[in-house]
Amino acid sequence: MPAERIRDHAGQGATTVAAHRRRLRADRARQLADLLRHQVLTGGFPDGTLPHEAALGADYRATRGTVRQALDLLRAEGLVERLPGVGTVVVAQKYPHGLDRLMGLAETLREHGQVSNEIRTVGPVAAPAPVAERLRVPPGADVLYIERLRRLDGLPLSLDLTYVPLDLGTALLGADLENTDVFRLLEAITGQPLGHAEITLEAVNADAHSAAVLQAPRGAAVLMLERLTHLADGRPVDLEFIRFRGDRITMSGLLHRSR
Amino acid sequence: MPAERIRDHAGQGATTVAAHRRRLRADRARQLADLLRHQVLTGGFPDGTLPHEAALGADYRATRGTVRQALDLLRAEGLVERLPGVGTVVVAQKYPHGLDRLMGLAETLREHGQVSNEIRTVGPVAAPAPVAERLRVPPGADVLYIERLRRLDGLPLSLDLTYVPLDLGTALLGADLENTDVFRLLEAITGQPLGHAEITLEAVNADAHSAAVLQAPRGAAVLMLERLTHLADGRPVDLEFIRFRGDRITMSGLLHRSR
Repeated sequence: MPAERIRDHAGQGATTVAAHRRRLRADRARQLADLLRHQVLTGGFPDGTLPHEAALGADYRATRGTVRQALDLLRAEGLVERLPGVGTVVVAQKYPHGLDRLMGLAETLREHGQVSNEIRTVGPVAAPAPVAERLRVPPGADVLYIERLRRLDGLPLSLDLTYVPLDLGTALLGADLENTDVFRLLEAITGQPLGHAEITLEAVNADAHSAAVLQAPRGAAVLMLERLTHLADGRPVDLEFIRFRGDRITMSGLLHRSR
Repeated sequence: MPAERIRDHAGQGATTVAAHRRRLRADRARQLADLLRHQVLTGGFPDGTLPHEAALGADYRATRGTVRQALDLLRAEGLVERLPGVGTVVVAQKYPHGLDRLMGLAETLREHGQVSNEIRTVGPVAAPAPVAERLRVPPGADVLYIERLRRLDGLPLSLDLTYVPLDLGTALLGADLENTDVFRLLEAITGQPLGHAEITLEAVNADAHSAAVLQAPRGAAVLMLERLTHLADGRPVDLEFIRFRGDRITMSGLLHRSR
């Protein structure tokens, strides 16, 4: 990434020349890391090995130092690892979760492997006010609470906290929650398809306990999804708080300028 | 959150009773924290002060210890703070970024404040292969590279790395990039609206340099958005890599079961 022609707005005031150079290299390493990350996530290195540093430097017109710093960034994210005598290899796979259609985890990851759910907790609880309000049940009425650690081919992906109105929840209690999406079960129980869901996504640092459950380092970045799902007739039936391991899930979709 | 009626799947094998109790309390604290987080983010505490711990305990049928632990989780996320003599107050505001329509940052946050852009770098670079391919320009052809630190009312929100084909980029060079979304400028330059964008969202831990630029702690959770935006006629014109501070942005939208 040649900088000669770039108009660059740093280095003013008290910034020293050395600090300015460090900043430029860090900026270029980030640029390069973002491009390589895209390649890693989209299977751009089919044999799982990145080109040698010198080749990357030539391809991206970057110095060896910048290439190394970019690879360090991807390594810190857990995406690649350096193997002596082999080079830099892709070690983490992130699975794409669709943002275009309302789908359960097993549905959306069907091509990638088998989703299994460890049921950590299940049973009725008196609905706290914000749950009752959103599920449109009387405050304090029982709702079914389900807590699941969800895995893909045995690897922890997400920790899901779910609230369902008890008339539907009772039927869920007898269902195969270990191997079936709640979405699919709700459609089977009600005999109608789901309609829409309001979702909110955030990036948060995992607290110690959530990190331990997800087998991730404390403070690991987590993609947090809050989702209120309605049946086709508009009734809200499923309120979920989902913590996805940031290193294992991406969310992809299409946005349109006009609707 | 009463646990008596809950069928709970922990505590088997070598787990001690004390460890089991700790886990139950941590689980309940997370449940409560998620409900309170929703209230905090959606303005559920209009005067910015949370109810006293005893009131929260009564409302949510939780012990004082669970309430404290839940508030600790929100404090660790930087959402609330405990003020002696006052109680627990909301200290961080997260701004909602729409996931339903393709919008620039200033457009989407118009009601919340003034977006300004610090141009860290701007100028032509030879397009690396993955950029050239996605913007459909010949490999090595010049594209305009722009790096912006974006602020809302002075507060750092995101670090954006942008690539634009040079025929449009040249016009951008003379534009008011400090105060205008690139989206709006591209529509003005081309005389046509934007069409759609392919997006990918991830949660990552900020590297040291990105954290410093965003004035966030090292390792802070960042919502990373990769976005390839096309004009209405289908031409790809804007490839962006955006790091949003996780503690300042949420992404909200509506998903449908069928399309």
